[in-house]
Amino acid sequence: MIPVGHSEIEAAAVRIAPYVRHTPVLHLEKDALGLGVPVTLKLEMLQVTGTFKARGAFNRILAAPERPAAGVIAASGGNHGLAVAHAARQLGLRAEIFVPEISNPAKIARLRESGATLHVGGAAYADAFAAMELRARETGALVVHAYDQTEVIAGQGTVARELEREVPEAETLLVAVGGGGLIGGIAAWTAGRRRIVAVEPEACPCLHNALMAGHPVDAPVGGIAADSLGARRIGETAFPILRHYVAAALLVPDEAIRAAQRALWRACRIVAEPGGAAALAALLAGAYRPAAEERVAVLVCGANCDPGTVA
Amino acid sequence: MIPVGHSEIEAAAVRIAPYVRHTPVLHLEKDALGLGVPVTLKLEMLQVTGTFKARGAFNRILAAPERPAAGVIAASGGNHGLAVAHAARQLGLRAEIFVPEISNPAKIARLRESGATLHVGGAAYADAFAAMELRARETGALVVHAYDQTEVIAGQGTVARELEREVPEAETLLVAVGGGGLIGGIAAWTAGRRRIVAVEPEACPCLHNALMAGHPVDAPVGGIAADSLGARRIGETAFPILRHYVAAALLVPDEAIRAAQRALWRACRIVAEPGGAAALAALLAGAYRPAAEERVAVLVCGANCDPGTVA
Repeated sequence: MIPVGHSEIEAAAVRIAPYVRHTPVLHLEKDALGLGVPVTLKLEMLQVTGTFKARGAFNRILAAPERPAAGVIAASGGNHGLAVAHAARQLGLRAEIFVPEISNPAKIARLRESGATLHVGGAAYADAFAAMELRARETGALVVHAYDQTEVIAGQGTVARELEREVPEAETLLVAVGGGGLIGGIAAWTAGRRRIVAVEPEACPCLHNALMAGHPVDAPVGGIAADSLGARRIGETAFPILRHYVAAALLVPDEAIRAAQRALWRACRIVAEPGGAAALAALLAGAYRPAAEERVAVLVCGANCDPGTVA
Repeated sequence: MIPVGHSEIEAAAVRIAPYVRHTPVLHLEKDALGLGVPVTLKLEMLQVTGTFKARGAFNRILAAPERPAAGVIAASGGNHGLAVAHAARQLGLRAEIFVPEISNPAKIARLRESGATLHVGGAAYADAFAAMELRARETGALVVHAYDQTEVIAGQGTVARELEREVPEAETLLVAVGGGGLIGGIAAWTAGRRRIVAVEPEACPCLHNALMAGHPVDAPVGGIAADSLGARRIGETAFPILRHYVAAALLVPDEAIRAAQRALWRACRIVAEPGGAAALAALLAGAYRPAAEERVAVLVCGANCDPGTVA
């Protein structure tokens, strides 16, 4: 049973169009990254609030049958919180955001300016989520999940709809995975027409472990991308989509992610946070080796970091 | 007498296509920069070597009737030198680059790794140019001028050819000016079909002063963008094009340039060096005020800086 499909993503695209950016792609020459293959980057870190998260957040809120007086509420490593806070502000709603202590200072600083009520606490995303759930029961605010809701997944899927039009020749898409909302939406849109390769940090392997187990399982959360990719367990909603459509779930070490951040700056003057560079890391580190003429697109999905950390 | 036109720019586009990137544009929502008008950014800082300079450098070298054994030689604030060094390496030529002491450390570090022979000396670009000229007479290397050659201007004009196809609705293009090669190529391509607005730092007003005088004159060189926009005198080749086609030559203070760098990072996760953000500064600081429905495109033309300096 695949819970999100073309019609949900088409509807999301129409719904969110006034609020999000159509992000461009950059076609790199064969030797730009030393790979010997032409790679296309989808520059989703140029999205409103610096990540793809705005797509899902706007879709969830706009699709809700009603908007409670208490507004919206979300738990997040930081990026989803920024997107929800921004969407709430644009739509005239109150927002309450819960982030863990590992959230990047750049994200926390932006959240403090976002107009949302911010709670910082707990070691990882899952702890912030537990605190958010308690509070949501008190207030009745609309919960905007970071990945485990069909509207959120459908919103994220709009990035694949754009990308497929921009780069129809791309056979393979490399996508970083946290809780699976982004890759779930992408896989739901492409539905087997493209090879979808999932990339996780070795320190946050929740999709990899779930695919091994055959169902979502708790996984470790750590490393440099934990504040964007640090879900303890892959989303229940996305998992059936991912099990059906993901060709491989690759793991990359933190050093490869840092190297990918440096390569993006060095070769393209692109800033990406660790989670935003993880998909490219799989290519640069050789975890994914495209065939000679294979056309590969890589999602650069976030840049909410101190830019001084990428050079 | 207009020395560069459509046919030269079309020929340049064909010549350089295998070596340069087609850079994308980003359409911003009306409130992204607080301007209340939708602005389109041409992301030319994603170009090979981090600025538009690769276009002109490749065109000059590829169009040369012969390639001397001594290779190529250039003087530069840094960006043109990086482009010439890169082009030389790609084409299997030697390169010798002269930069002044004000060149940004990030540029000098990249030049040291470029494979070119590097000379750092003199207070500003004009001093590096004088040293380069002496050396060129000794070696017979092909001089690749940073702005004052028709092939260089034609190469830079290819950015307008791309932009016009990407954003046919843009009525007005805002472009930063150093020696006039970039805006000369853009004005030669658009040839009156778009409003071309020149932007210079108050501390580097060579086009502004030349337009006032009616001919190129020496101007001060200073401020935070001097290493990319710090030509002492507008190029003789570009000047007739600019006098004919430039609607206004606006001056912006350094603080407005810094504010534009911060705004690009904050609203778009784009890193631009001071010269790369100067055109946008004219819009943000109110030096250029578009009409209610005017469609404006802004060239973000370089990012060769320490990314930690933009946040």
